[in-house]
Parts: sequence; C-alpha cells; structure tokens
Amino acid sequence: MAPLPWTLSPDRCFDSEPSRRAVARELYGQVRDLPLFCPHGHVSPHLLADPAARLGSPAELFIMPDHYVLRMLVSQGLALEQLGLPTRPSDQHPHGAGVPVETDHRRIWQRFADHFHCFRGTPTGLWLQAELVELFGVTERLSAESAGRIYDHLEARLADPTFAPRALFKRFRIELLATTDAATDTLAAHRALHAEGLTTVRPTFRPDALLALDAPDWPDQIARLSAVAGVEVVDYHSYIVALEQRRAAFKALGALATDHGVVSPYSARLSEREAEAIFTRALRGQARAADSARFTAHMLIEYARMSCEDGLVMQLHAGSLRNHHQALAARFGPDRGADIPLRTEWTRNLRPLLNAYGADPRFRIILFTLDESSYSRELAPLAGYYPAVLIGPPWWFHDSVNGMRRYFDQVIETAGIYNTAGFNDDTRAFASIPARHDVWRRVSCDWLAGQVVQGLLAEDEAVDLAHQLAIGLAKRAYRVEAGGA
Amino acid sequence: MAPLPWTLSPDRCFDSEPSRRAVARELYGQVRDLPLFCPHGHVSPHLLADPAARLGSPAELFIMPDHYVLRMLVSQGLALEQLGLPTRPSDQHPHGAGVPVETDHRRIWQRFADHFHCFRGTPTGLWLQAELVELFGVTERLSAESAGRIYDHLEARLADPTFAPRALFKRFRIELLATTDAATDTLAAHRALHAEGLTTVRPTFRPDALLALDAPDWPDQIARLSAVAGVEVVDYHSYIVALEQRRAAFKALGALATDHGVVSPYSARLSEREAEAIFTRALRGQARAADSARFTAHMLIEYARMSCEDGLVMQLHAGSLRNHHQALAARFGPDRGADIPLRTEWTRNLRPLLNAYGADPRFRIILFTLDESSYSRELAPLAGYYPAVLIGPPWWFHDSVNGMRRYFDQVIETAGIYNTAGFNDDTRAFASIPARHDVWRRVSCDWLAGQVVQGLLAEDEAVDLAHQLAIGLAKRAYRVEAGGA
Amino acid sequence: MAPLPWTLSPDRCFDSEPSRRAVARELYGQVRDLPLFCPHGHVSPHLLADPAARLGSPAELFIMPDHYVLRMLVSQGLALEQLGLPTRPSDQHPHGAGVPVETDHRRIWQRFADHFHCFRGTPTGLWLQAELVELFGVTERLSAESAGRIYDHLEARLADPTFAPRALFKRFRIELLATTDAATDTLAAHRALHAEGLTTVRPTFRPDALLALDAPDWPDQIARLSAVAGVEVVDYHSYIVALEQRRAAFKALGALATDHGVVSPYSARLSEREAEAIFTRALRGQARAADSARFTAHMLIEYARMSCEDGLVMQLHAGSLRNHHQALAARFGPDRGADIPLRTEWTRNLRPLLNAYGADPRFRIILFTLDESSYSRELAPLAGYYPAVLIGPPWWFHDSVNGMRRYFDQVIETAGIYNTAGFNDDTRAFASIPARHDVWRRVSCDWLAGQVVQGLLAEDEAVDLAHQLAIGLAKRAYRVEAGGA
Repeated sequence: MAPLPWTLSPDRCFDSEPSRRAVARELYGQVRDLPLFCPHGHVSPHLLADPAARLGSPAELFIMPDHYVLRMLVSQGLALEQLGLPTRPSDQHPHGAGVPVETDHRRIWQRFADHFHCFRGTPTGLWLQAELVELFGVTERLSAESAGRIYDHLEARLADPTFAPRALFKRFRIELLATTDAATDTLAAHRALHAEGLTTVRPTFRPDALLALDAPDWPDQIARLSAVAGVEVVDYHSYIVALEQRRAAFKALGALATDHGVVSPYSARLSEREAEAIFTRALRGQARAADSARFTAHMLIEYARMSCEDGLVMQLHAGSLRNHHQALAARFGPDRGADIPLRTEWTRNLRPLLNAYGADPRFRIILFTLDESSYSRELAPLAGYYPAVLIGPPWWFHDSVNGMRRYFDQVIETAGIYNTAGFNDDTRAFASIPARHDVWRRVSCDWLAGQVVQGLLAEDEAVDLAHQLAIGLAKRAYRVEAGGA
Repeated sequence: MAPLPWTLSPDRCFDSEPSRRAVARELYGQVRDLPLFCPHGHVSPHLLADPAARLGSPAELFIMPDHYVLRMLVSQGLALEQLGLPTRPSDQHPHGAGVPVETDHRRIWQRFADHFHCFRGTPTGLWLQAELVELFGVTERLSAESAGRIYDHLEARLADPTFAPRALFKRFRIELLATTDAATDTLAAHRALHAEGLTTVRPTFRPDALLALDAPDWPDQIARLSAVAGVEVVDYHSYIVALEQRRAAFKALGALATDHGVVSPYSARLSEREAEAIFTRALRGQARAADSARFTAHMLIEYARMSCEDGLVMQLHAGSLRNHHQALAARFGPDRGADIPLRTEWTRNLRPLLNAYGADPRFRIILFTLDESSYSRELAPLAGYYPAVLIGPPWWFHDSVNGMRRYFDQVIETAGIYNTAGFNDDTRAFASIPARHDVWRRVSCDWLAGQVVQGLLAEDEAVDLAHQLAIGLAKRAYRVEAGGA
Repeated sequence: MAPLPWTLSPDRCFDSEPSRRAVARELYGQVRDLPLFCPHGHVSPHLLADPAARLGSPAELFIMPDHYVLRMLVSQGLALEQLGLPTRPSDQHPHGAGVPVETDHRRIWQRFADHFHCFRGTPTGLWLQAELVELFGVTERLSAESAGRIYDHLEARLADPTFAPRALFKRFRIELLATTDAATDTLAAHRALHAEGLTTVRPTFRPDALLALDAPDWPDQIARLSAVAGVEVVDYHSYIVALEQRRAAFKALGALATDHGVVSPYSARLSEREAEAIFTRALRGQARAADSARFTAHMLIEYARMSCEDGLVMQLHAGSLRNHHQALAARFGPDRGADIPLRTEWTRNLRPLLNAYGADPRFRIILFTLDESSYSRELAPLAGYYPAVLIGPPWWFHDSVNGMRRYFDQVIETAGIYNTAGFNDDTRAFASIPARHDVWRRVSCDWLAGQVVQGLLAEDEAVDLAHQLAIGLAKRAYRVEAGGA
C-alpha cells in the first residue's frame, strides 16, 4: 500500500469551536518559541557531560529506556526480553526461561511498530509522533509496514552530529535542565559540566534511599553517604550532618531543589530521642516494622527545616506504589512500568509539616499527586492558603491533554494560578522534552482561550498568563528570576 | 392541551460544534447498524427459551422489574406497593401496613407517567424515550395527561407477535447474548436453547452466593451445589471440585465468562490448611466474623487459577453495598434500587491476584468499578501494564452519556483503547438493549470526533476505532473472534 | 497609563459555541431577574435588624470579613495584621511579634489591589468584579495603580443611604434570607426583625458547639443553653428537652431548617443508657477520647428524629477540617481561611440514620460535600433512592463555574434534578449575594442549553428547569411553597 503521510495538525490540542480556537492560536503563537525551563526531570547528566555521547539506536532512544512505552507493550503480551531488556544476573525466575533477550534493535523496533496503534489516544503516542515528525523529519505514518524504512531514516539522522545531545540541547533552547540525583551521588558529571561552564544543567538532591531503614541495601547507602560526605555516619546526629553536607555540595553545583518520593505524604515530628533510637536500631540491623514509615514522616519535617535554612525548594512526589509486579522488579529492576498509584491523603498527613513551616517565608514546597481526586479537595485548598505550598503540574500518567484539562479545571478556581508551579517535563527521554512542553503550552493556551471566550479573563490577562504558564511560574517556583538562571 | 409530539434528535449525544458533529455523524453512520454483541447482562434465559414467552403489560415491561425506574419513583415518595411490587410473605414491617399492593397495571403506569419529568437528564429517561419512540412507535410525549393513550398503544403493540422476545431478538440483530446465572443453576433454560440450536444465548457462571459463608442460606447453597454438580461437598477440596464441575457444565453450554460481585476487590492467598479450616468451620455453622472476607479474598485467586485452566474470562464487579436500606430488602427482596456504591481500592487489593496471574497469557480479568476516582488513579494504570487486565465499560450508574465521557476522558490516555473491553449493556430490561448500545455508539463516535477535530487522531484511525468500540473490543475481550461467536 | 476599562461580558459563563450560547441566553433571560431565595447563609441578622447599620469601609466590606479573600492574600505571603485583622488578646505567638495591625483601611485596600491579579480565574475574582462593576458602578479595572481612585469611588457610594443594608435587601429582590445562628443564640436580632414585620429574614438552628463534649468551652455552652432555653441541663434527658425547646423557639421565628457541621457524617444509634453515660461523663469533665465522635454520631440520628417531629429541614455539611493551621486559629480565631477539606465517606456513615428515617415522609435532609469524588459514587445514588435525601448545591470551594459544571455532570444523571436542592449562596458577604446567584443562574442555563443542543432535553423542558434551578427547587427543598414564604 502507498505510504500514509504523517503530519501534525498545527491546531492540535485546540478546541474546535472557531472563536476559541482563534484565541488559542494567538496565545500559542506568543509562547511557542519561548525557551524551555526544565526544573525537574530524569535525564542523565552523563548524556551532556560527555561531548562524545550519542542517543543510540532508534530502539535505545525510543523504546528500551521509556517506561511509558514498555508498560503498554507489556500490556499487549510482549516480554521485556523481546524488547531487548536484559534480566538481572540474579534472575532465576521460571517465567522467563526460554525467552531470549533480543539483541537485534531493528527487530525491537519492528515489534514496537507492530503495536503502535495501541498508543492511539495516549500522550506517549502524541509525543512520539511529534518527535518523529518534527524532530526527525519522518513523513510517513509508523506502522508494521513502514517500520523498516523509518528505522533506516532514524538511524541516519542519529548518526549525524546535529543529533548529538549537546547539539540538541541548544536546538531545543533549553534555558535550564535539572537532573535528579541520589543524595549519595558523587556528582562527577555535574562537576565536569560545571568546570566546563555548562551551568544550565543542575543537580537535584534526592535522598529517598537513605530513608528506607528496612531495605536490604540501606547499610550500603549509609556507607556511601559517609564516604561521599566525608562524615562518618554513626548516629542520628551525624546522619543529619552528612545530609546537610550533601545538600551544600548539591547547592554549590547550582541545585535549586530537593526531591522526595513517598508512598504517603505522612509527616510527624519525633522527639530527638525517638529519632535517635529508631536510627540506632536501624544501624544495628534491628529496625522494626513501623520504624521506616515513622522515620520518613519525621525526616520530611527535617527536610522542610533544612529547606528553610539552605533555600532549596522541596519537591514532594507522593502516592506511587513502586514495583507493583514483584516478579518484574526481581527480573528487570525498577522503573519498568509496573508502578501503580494509590489513593493519597494530604490534609491530615501534611498538617504537622505545614504547621511547623507552611507559613515560613523561607520555605517552599511543591506537591505532586497521582490521585486527581485530591486536586480540588485537598491540594488546591492547601496551596490557596499556605504561603509555602505550590501545586506541581499534572504528574506522570496525568501529564496528558486531558490530564492537564482536569488540572486546570479542578485546581485553578481554588488555588489560583499563582499558587501553581508551571510545568516540568519529568522525563528521562531527552529527545521528547520539546514535545512535552509543546503539549503543555498548547493545552494551557487552549484553556486560557476558553476563559476568554466565556468572558472570564480579558485578552491581555490571558496573554500575560500564557507567558506565566509557559515559563514564568516555573522560574518563580524554583526561585530563578526572569533575569537569568 | 394538544399532544406534544415526541421525537428523537438524529444528532442526540453529539457535541453541537459543527465540525465535530459532522465527524461524529459520519462515524456513527458506519456503526449504527452493526449487530449487537452482549457479553454481560441479566436478561432471563426463560424469556428466550420459551417460544410462547411475552413481555407482559407496559407496567411489567417498563416499571416493575427495572430498579433504575423503581429507585427514582421511591425517591419521590412512592411506595413499591403502589408500583405493584408484592411484599415478601414474611413481611411484618409496620411501615408497610395499610398500603395495598396495586394490581391495576394501568394505575401503575399512570403513577410512573405522573413522575416522568423526574427522569429528565437521566440515562433512564433517554433509554425509555428511545424505546417508546423508536421501538414502540409512540408519537406523543409521555405525561400525566397522555399516559392512558400511550398505555393503550403499548398494550396493542405488546400483544402483537412481532413483539415477542424471540422476534425482537432477531429484530435487534443480537449476535450473542450472555445471561448471568447462579453457579447452582441447573441451566435448564440454556440446555433447552442449546438443544434447539439457539447457541447465541450463553450462560455466565456467577458463584457469589457460595462465598457468603456467614449468610443464613449458605448451607442451602452448598446443598444445591452438591446436588447440581453431583459432587458431595464435604470439605474444601470437594467444594473446589464441585465448582470446577459447574464451570465445565457452563462452558459446555457456551459460557464465555464468570462474574464475581464483591464489596471490595480484596485478594489474598490462604494456605491450603487455612482455607480448609475456614471452610470446615463454615460447614459446621461456626464461621467467624472475618472468615467470609478472607475466604472470598482467597477464592478470587482460586477463580483466577481456574480461569487460567478453563479459559473462562473473569469479570469482577466491585464496590456496591447491596441493600443499603435494610427495611426495603426485608420487605421486597434484593435488586429494588437501594444498592449504593462504596469507595474502592484496587491497587493494593488486587496485587496478590495480579502477582500470581496478571502476566499469565491464559488469564483475562475485566474490572468494573462504581468509583470513578479509581479510573485514572488505579484501573487505567493496572490495565495499561498487566497483560491479563482489561477495564470494563462504565458500569451501572455510570452507563450514561456523561459517565461514558468521563470514562473516555480518564481511562484512555493511560490504559489505551486496546486495554478496554468495549461495551456491555448489563441489563435485565431486554427491550432496552438497542437503546443502550445506541447511546454507547453515539457517545463513542462523538468522543472520537473530538479527537479528530483536535488533531489527536487521523480520520481513518477514528473509523477503525469506532468499529472497535461498537463491537470489536467486546468480542476480543471475551475471546470471540470476529469470524463468528 | 490610561485606565483599563472594566466591563462584564453579557455572555459570561456561557459556552462559546453559537447554537448553545443562543439557547443559554434565551434561558438566562427568563430567570435573570427572578427574586433571590437564600435558604442558607451567614449574613449577620444585626445588619438588617438595625436600620442604621452600614456596610463599613471598602476594606471592611470586601476584605476583612471574607475568608475567601483572606486565604488568597495569606497564600501570597501577607500577614493578616497587614489586612487589619486584630490578634486575639491572648496571643503570645512569637511569629506575630513586630507586625503591627494595620488601621489604615486605604492601605489595606491597596495591598488587596496589589494582589488582585491572583484572583484571576477564581470565583472570588468573578464575584468581586460583578459587585464592583454592577453594584458599585466601578468602570476601570482594579489594579495597584487604580486602587486609590476606586477606593474613593466606593467610599462615596457606601456613604449613600441607597447602599444601606436594608436598601440593598430590597434592591436585590431577596424573597427570603436565612441566617445561621448558634442554638444558644438569644435570637434578639431575629425577634426585633420579626416584631417589625420583616419576616423574610429567618434564623437557622446550628447546635454544633453543644456536641463538642471535649472542647474547653463546652461547659459554658451548656450553661448558655440552660439559660436561654430556661431548662436546667443536668443530664442527657434535660439536654434533649432544652434542644427541643430551642428548636421550637427558632421555628416560632420562622426557621426553616437546622444546620450541622461535622468532620465526618458518621451516624450511629446509642442506647439511651449509653448516651446518658457519655453525657454524664462529659458534665463531670471526664469525657473520654472517643466520646465526642460517638455522641455526635448518635445525636445526628436524634436530630433526624426531631426533624421528623417539628418539620425543620436538616442540613448536613460534612468534611471540613477546621483551623488546619493551628497558629492562625490561636492568633485570629476561626474562619480565617485555613479550613481544609477531607475525604468523606457517606454510604456506610449515613446508613444507620437513613435506615431509621430516610423513608419517613416527614423527614428531609440536605447533604453538602467538599469531596467531589462522592458526587457520582455516593451522594447521587443516595439521593436517587431515599425520599428524604436531597443533594445541596456545590459548596464553598466548589461554588464556582467549574464546580457547578462538575456538579451537574456528576450528580444529575443518577440523582435526577428533582433530588437536588437548588442553590444557596452560603455567604457572609451580604453585598455579594446577587453576584453569586447570578453565576449559578448563568451556569445552570448554560448546562441546560448544552442538554438542549445535544438533543437530551426539549426546549420547553429546559425553560421549566431553568426556573426550577433558579428558585423553584430551593423553595421546594426548604418546604416553602411557590405561593409565598
């Protein structure tokens, strides 16, 4: 059959009612080409620290590292081995026996293309189409039939130096890119970038692994912390000192924020004595069942205190049950697509933390949820009252056209736009960054256009807010002023 | 006053923006007349097994068996006796004293017509209007004033052999109709249908009553199971054998699926010894408070195992608190409109079951919820990862124009269309089946049209998906290939 | 810069699709000027009882008493002292030290104007604009620059007798205004109004403070109850008698309803003996931890019983965690903007109450939620079955354009329009009453127009329902017939 042409509507994501669409186009035209400000994400700093780094094969770029793609293909019955993912050396799982790990990247690509129709109506489908068409110049629709030709096309492009990460970084007009780094990371890549003067790439302090008192690798984590901080962690006090040292090291390399991933945003202040007792038990390998949760609740408040003192913005991502499918995690490790959200309670859980620091002018906390029922019920009321609280953009599964619409619909009336944190792409897929910001800019302009045609905003207000949503609010949230990062 | 004409807009359920409506019309035109595939519902098989069966009076057809109608009339202060519903012989309830059971069906119809305005804006109102106008040829609006004339009209139609259930079955172009049958049902009606070659009517295995260890009639249920299975149930082992025997008997008559109604989707594997102990206590009439819930949690995993082995698709309907109004249940029995949904947790509850069988290629489970907050938070992420999981269509109260829109809005971006199970009408109101499928087809075409005009789907993709949503996904979900049931 | 003109779109809140907008305009034209029926709110009766009462300065009218305004300004880092709010005499809080209480109302107004852009997209912004433009004749947009001129303008208007509360009461065409009054209130203002023949202002019985057995001021509350009821409260029996006496006193002054604010709608019947025991412990100052919650659960059922007997409609507002920020409450008292909603369970919690009285034709209960996830899951099914239950309008944070749309979307299909309670403004901001009703009337007409253009309602049905939503349903809910209050 003749190749199906693949084009993107210039009006995609816009409501079809002509008066609204006209306003949306006008607003979008004003913000489409603004620089990208990326204060939270998971791009590897090595990709940018090493001038020789390349994006890899089409399978390595689009499929193998992207848990959005992997999960959909798994849901259709594909094994991760068929997509080239190696099992862990320790894997003894009977289910995997006999499925060889695919090493032919062209075959991986073909399997992906065979199932590309499954991404219809999903944000992943929209991002991929935008990347393939706009960034890589693909002109025919991806399908089982066209897979090979498109693979060839992509391979050729990826071999070109203009598709090297540093070249793309410039082409994307990225003004600032924050990575997410373990608290125990040596930050070697960031130091190299810094030494080279590439200060637009920033680390973010993520200490989650140091809170999991009952995890098998916690002693290792503590050992690593001691080593990297140059502080022997022998008790609760030295643990706090080491953490503060690491925050300072991150800050010295330009970190704007910390990031905390928790199952529940439960916060509770322990007495110094109790915190010390729990920590000592953990060091002895005698942590009790409830210790980890109580210690985490306490440490959230401690991290808020540290944020007041060092000015790092605190990001809190709550409500994901990681590695729901335990067999998958055992065989392939984390972040393969089997994380599932949980109902999340914010009002009571955050009360101790917010009573301690929510009105402190030095403090800022950005809340991210996977439980949309909390938008209008808990998050918007909290952000609409506490000076320290901002609501982060729609997170993960909700970073989508309709997810954004629900967010605008349910958050803004109570919180106001100025208590939100703009957009971040939260991605490890470097090449998808422009596509993700573009969807946000389109949907926010369409939402503003809806407000205008309903007489709820004046046009000049909408123009101002379009800029705020595109970049201003994010810079303000992370305390980077418009004058420069 | 002059009779108000009653017509149906050919564009009902379509967005009014002209470009979107044009696409919706085009898509709907392609699927409107496709056959109806009905894999889950509550039509009595006797209605079709007996060639002489008739639909009864207008009151018997439209009011007395329909809990959607009854609940609305009750909410307006009508007593079920006034609607012809007999109280149970055991009824001694003081509230009912003095309200005679209405036997004049014309008066029942009049009471319904007096309150017909209460159904404005409800799916019941939409279905009833479509049935009355399109199927029965009513031409004036139902009201207190027109009630009598319309009753006469309906009575005449219902007396006509072209309105016999078997005639309507053909006229509706029903390709397959699954009923829901107790595990202890003798399946006499289905055997008769089968013997006659009417294999388009299928049973569905529903074993809920055999799980309620603490229900007064549980010993009777076990006795019935023993009798119908020809297996003396004397312990946990023979119980399992008897259930497996019944599944085989259902399957022999063409069953595609099992159905399980639970208050919570809690799953947990018990040891063989513990399952045996609980079952033995129950047989002795000594079931403890928590036994029934734990045993149900265990049996959900057992039913998943059986599904792997016999290939019956597992349907799980969770979150309805049955018989909320206990006085009503005591006087009139179940299914009279007083079931009220509950918040439903899926992520943690289903984890044991899905870790055991969620990636097993032999297994398929379809999840139905009454808690829409779980669509985007739990169900779509689960279906978008586990190969075995599909999300069922909007259930019960959410089988409505806006309920479907919320479903498309909240489910598809994360789960993808191919992890959903299409539509089923879930009705005991046989004559309403075409009206219900028609609403689904209209709303799904309107949703697809919205995707097209926003540049999120190509037109040819939307045409394909319109067919999938109308019938393809349902056949695939219940493992009936397009080539024939 | 030149002043920006400030006008209101005559089509505000209407969808922009022309055919729908045309219907919305037509419907709105029919209800815009209907009288205002205000069965639930928090206007002080003294404002109307005293013919000399005035609305105060612009700061006193628009800022200082309005917790919607205060919370947004606090979220931007302003201290309540800067907005003129006095700290309590007992305040010893270190945070407040050094922030003087602003006494210059013009400066308060300036601070508010400096942050007025924060109200973009919020209902508060919409109400304020409508009040300023339509009621006070402001013609330039409120901003930091225009603040002073607008202050002068408002001051002049407020000095005019036509802006006295009684004059506005007439100008607003208020047909009935219910206030909310403590059960222990002497009702002096209401008696004065009554004596003057101003029977369109009605009290509402709110006994919450008498349920908080463990609150420090509970003994005082009981003493006040004894005094005002003329019944010495010495045990549970006399407590009930005193409450019944107060209900009778409220009813004699025209009360239509009672109002109950609870954290959770938990209901449970205690035995007389247990209720007596708890109450006795409380009188002795020995209330136990769980006593207050259990007693409240019991008393909800008792209040339902009393409603059956005296005909007062029972309003239940559940799910607000009051004074989330304890420091704020300690320094400034309640109702300053720091109340945060909680997840709310209705199905199980209300079951005992509804099983006792939900089908009693003498009983009516109106349910208000801050947890929108319960609309389609619990509230609509409950209201769509129990004769006594109505769903109140979108409450508090959800009294907004999108909040109303979600309400219509999620409630009506299951509950039907006739199981809702119309609108109430629930405000203490007297001058905002017309603006609030106007938003409801606009959004409900727009919603009806959407039903019409989608072929789901006939135009004459929509006209009828527009009247119902504007005023009819509220009068019916509170048992005031159309013929007059």
